[in-house]
This record gives sequence, C-alpha cells and structure tokens, in this order.
Amino acid sequence: MESERRPRLTPAIADVRRAVRSCIDDLAPATTDALLLVALSGGADSLALAAATAFEAPRSAMRAGAVVVDHGLQAGSAAVAERAAAQARALGLDPVLVRRVDVAAATDGGGPEAAARDARYEALNAAAAETGALAVLVGHTLDDQAETVLLGLARGSGGSSLQGMAAASGILRRPLLGIRRSTTRQFCTDAGLGAWDDPHNDSDLYARVRVRARVLPVLETELGPGIAEALARTAEQLREDSEALDSMVEETIEEICEPAEAGIAVSVGALAANPAALRQRIIRHVVDSEFGVSLSRVQTLAVARLVTDWHGQKPLDLPGIRVKRDGGLIVFTAASTPL
Amino acid sequence: MESERRPRLTPAIADVRRAVRSCIDDLAPATTDALLLVALSGGADSLALAAATAFEAPRSAMRAGAVVVDHGLQAGSAAVAERAAAQARALGLDPVLVRRVDVAAATDGGGPEAAARDARYEALNAAAAETGALAVLVGHTLDDQAETVLLGLARGSGGSSLQGMAAASGILRRPLLGIRRSTTRQFCTDAGLGAWDDPHNDSDLYARVRVRARVLPVLETELGPGIAEALARTAEQLREDSEALDSMVEETIEEICEPAEAGIAVSVGALAANPAALRQRIIRHVVDSEFGVSLSRVQTLAVARLVTDWHGQKPLDLPGIRVKRDGGLIVFTAASTPL
Repeated sequence: MESERRPRLTPAIADVRRAVRSCIDDLAPATTDALLLVALSGGADSLALAAATAFEAPRSAMRAGAVVVDHGLQAGSAAVAERAAAQARALGLDPVLVRRVDVAAATDGGGPEAAARDARYEALNAAAAETGALAVLVGHTLDDQAETVLLGLARGSGGSSLQGMAAASGILRRPLLGIRRSTTRQFCTDAGLGAWDDPHNDSDLYARVRVRARVLPVLETELGPGIAEALARTAEQLREDSEALDSMVEETIEEICEPAEAGIAVSVGALAANPAALRQRIIRHVVDSEFGVSLSRVQTLAVARLVTDWHGQKPLDLPGIRVKRDGGLIVFTAASTPL
Repeated sequence: MESERRPRLTPAIADVRRAVRSCIDDLAPATTDALLLVALSGGADSLALAAATAFEAPRSAMRAGAVVVDHGLQAGSAAVAERAAAQARALGLDPVLVRRVDVAAATDGGGPEAAARDARYEALNAAAAETGALAVLVGHTLDDQAETVLLGLARGSGGSSLQGMAAASGILRRPLLGIRRSTTRQFCTDAGLGAWDDPHNDSDLYARVRVRARVLPVLETELGPGIAEALARTAEQLREDSEALDSMVEETIEEICEPAEAGIAVSVGALAANPAALRQRIIRHVVDSEFGVSLSRVQTLAVARLVTDWHGQKPLDLPGIRVKRDGGLIVFTAASTPL
C-alpha cells in the first residue's frame, strides 16, 4: 500500500506533480478543511492527476477527494466506476463520490460526445457544490488540447474555435494542459497504478478518436515532431487574444448602444471607428445578448457592410432579427416587429 | 484566336472573373492609362487570373499586363517563361515582362522556398515600379491559403502564424483567395488554355507539397469536406483580430514608453492594466523596434512576469537585451550595457 502511495520520484511523476502544484498554488484555503476534487475516469490521465493531487494537496494545506462519473454508456460501466473509486480511496483521496448520469437526457442535438460532456460537467459542478470543493481538477492533457484545436479548425469559425480548453473555467481547472499523454501513462507505470483503457478511445465513430489515431500522426510525419505542442501553444495565444478583444467589446458596448423601439440601436460612427475585428464582435455581442441569436460570419459581415459599405441597402432579414440603417444608427429589431 | 480570348461564360470563368472584378473595383484609375500587372507562372492559377484580368481590366478602364518571373531553378525554365509570356500576349495582355531572378543570391537562411519567394516578390515590386502599375495581382487560391495556415500551425507561433496571406499587401493583391484550385483548372479547360504543371509541385522536398498531397486529403477524409474553406475562413478572422490588436498597441505605445539610460522603459502600471494579449504585444513591439530582437513566447512571458508576478526577480538576460524592473518601470537595455 505504502509503496503505491509513495512511489519513487521519477521524471514523469515529478512533471505531473509540478503541474498540479502550480495549478493549485493560488487556491490559498480560507478554511482549515478546504477540499479539491479530482474528476476521475480511471484512465491514465485522470489517475495520474488523482495520485499527484493526493500528494500535493496536503502540502498546500488542502484535502483531496474524487468524483467518478459513470456515464452508463457501456456495459460494465458501473464496475469501471467502482474500480476507479477504489483506486482513489487507495491513493488516500477522501471523499470519493460516484455519480451516475443520464447522458440521453442531456442530448440536445450536439451529438453523443457533446451530450456526455454536458452530463459530465453538470455532475462535476453538482459534486463541487455538494462538497463545498474549491475546485474540480480535470485531467485533459496537451494531447487533448491539440486534438481540440484540430477539431476547431475543421469547424472554421476563427479564433474562438481554435482556443481549445481553458486552464481555468468556473470551478474547473486543467492542470495537465502542458503535460503529454505519454507522461501520464509513464506516471501510472512508475507508480504501479493500473489505468483503465476506455474502449471508446478506439472507436472510429468519434471525430476526436480519428484526429488522435490518424490526423495527428500524419501531421507529425509530414510537418515534423512537435506539432501537438505547437497546437497547444497556438490555443493559449488565441485564447489570450480573444479575451483581450472580448474585454474591449464589453468596455465599450454600453457607451455605443441605445434603446430603440422594440430593439436596440448602435452608433454607426462608433462601429466605423473600430477595427473590423471589434466591429464584428460588437455586432455579434449585441445580437446575442439582446435577441439570443448567434450570427454566422457571413451574416455578421452583411450587417457590418451597412456601416462600411453603405449605399442604401434594404433592411437585412436574418434569423429572428431585422437590421437596418437609420441615419447615424444601426437598428436591430425582433423579426416579427413590423417596421 | 478570338475563340480563346472570348470563351463561353462557364461557371468557373464567371467565378474567377467576379473575384478579379471585386478585387480591383476600388482601384479607380486616376489616369487614362492605368495598368494592372498579373504575376504569371504559366500554371493554372495564374493563367486563369491572367485571362480573367485581360477581360475585366478594360471594363474598369484599366490596361492589363503581365510579369513572368523565371526563377532559373529548373532546366528549361527560360522556355517555360517564354511560353507563359506568349500565352499572356495571346490573351491580349500588354506589356508582358519576363524577369530572370537569381534565387541563390536571395537566400538568407530561410530555405529554398523562402529564397524563391523573396526573389519573386522583389522582381514583382521592381516590375510595378518600372511600369507604374497600380497593383500586381498574384494567383494564390483558397487551397494555397489553407496550406499556408497548416504550415503556420506547425510553427505554433499563435495567431500571427495562422493568418495566412493578406488579400492586399503593399502593391500586391490576391483576387483568388476565395477560389478553389479546381476552379482555376476548370477555367483553363473551359477557356482552352494549356496550363503548365510545375514539377516542383510533385516534389516531396517541399513542406507545402507534403501538406497538399498528404495532410489536407487526410483532414478531408477524417474531419469531413470543407476543411480547406474552414482554414481559409480562420485565416481571415485571425488576420482581423491581429490587425485590431496591433493597431491598439500602436495607439498606446507612445504614451507608456519613455527613454532610459542606454535603452527604453515602459510603465509597469500601464502594462499591468492591459490584458495579457496586449501586454505581450507591447513587450515584443518595444524590444523589436528598439533593439531589432524578436522575442519568443517563453521570453516574452518571462518579461511579463516582472509585471504580473513580481517577487524581486533578477534582471533577465535575453539574446541581445537585458530587462529589469526598476520601481514602476520595466527597463530594457542593450545586453552589452553594464548595469
């Protein structure tokens, strides 16, 4: 037992522990009983994370617990969850919660991967609320991040689709975004931990699996090694760029909008004075926050042309909204409103 | 002859002509003798561009000419250039210039592709200056743009490596960035134009060729069709984002910098008040403009931590410069300056 909980300090174990330490070191606990939860599937990534957190949390005056989410999607999933929970207890994590979720109920048109993800995050947030945990640590690695960037590229919706997963988002933290998947496997080997291999990881039905098995290896072969790291670096920088631009939009949006009959109006002059990237974000932000409509790039550019290429265009009828230029204002109204 | 110059209007011909028209329609000629040059290799992309420009330029009250650059890299390159020049004359382009360049002389460590590109652009700019052309049109297609984005991804230097080629850059314009390569081939078939196939396009020595032949097809197979379009859309949006952030840096840089002994200083408060993306761009901008040094992301983040994570760090010794925090200032000096 003790030999599993205090393994020899190998490079892989040191790397994962250091990543956990630097991810939690700002979580100075206000109470003597502060808790971190680890989201544990039993796979190598989350198992290494759980073991490293069991080691690091007490050194930062916190307790470490675990949540195991049973998606109920595969035969024997309850047994897999129980095995992971037993491993967590053996590592000294406490409490260890097992939560069965109903993935089918979470489906709202986003496909099976999105449904499972939504159900999982809902369960993690609920477990955090229930236990009063300061954070829930999830085991996404640099490889997961690179895959996410490539999946975003295929969608082609610009920077926001390429920025990958955030290192911190709400109560979630992802300490391993700079760690290769091979390192978490090595950690488990070094620590004598038997990781579970999710059979879904071999299923070609999932775009992510195809990216992992066939796209990234081709990129490595043709463009040289280091492509996963390059994709992860790209994600980090694009996330910063996006956050900067979004915060600028939020700073200016109040000043340049005014209420209009059955809608909202934005100053043409203010839109014209901003660079294209901000102009388009302002348009998307106004339409999203006022009408709950998410404009495509083509639609956004059509609205922008009412500012930048004005030659008396007719009002634009877009899904759910109508947009027209009225003197010095761009006026957005709900589509059903007669003009 | 006439049948080649006035082909039946097929969809491919209409698409390429429309792309040329919308690219040149802001070039209202100031003189009655305004000239557009087309950069012609004789390949399908530039041949379609030359034919479409021969048709469209007179309709916008301009003349169309061509520049053929002979890179001298392959046996028979002079004959290929002469054949392309003859095709340009047959299409009615006038003048038609052939320029032989010395690629070896242009090499400065960027590899053979970069050397050929540098020599080519130098020759195009010289031809424009010589003829007084309003613009030089180059035949890069949507496929070229997608390949450029993937090559940039492999470098992993964030948004700036993903923004692909600009639609307009100096005197250069790229009317075909929204046109698939298959469309330019169809144009040539429809117009009875015999395009030249560059044997370099089959050489595995070039990363771009490997991307074209092996990376993009795998992405299409595994992630679905439309990946080239998605990459091109991404490039367009990232270019806008980058331009917006760069212009903000330029607006603020004067206010927050001050001369320092043997260097330059930037206000800690101003750096701290900016979002990370702008803070890092300001640091890179200052170092580049003051010392001609291009900082890596890791180096830039180390400088930023003198602002965001100050705990009395030692001065940073970076290639060519030393950076230290001095009270409310970050001070950059040349590396050889004793502190």
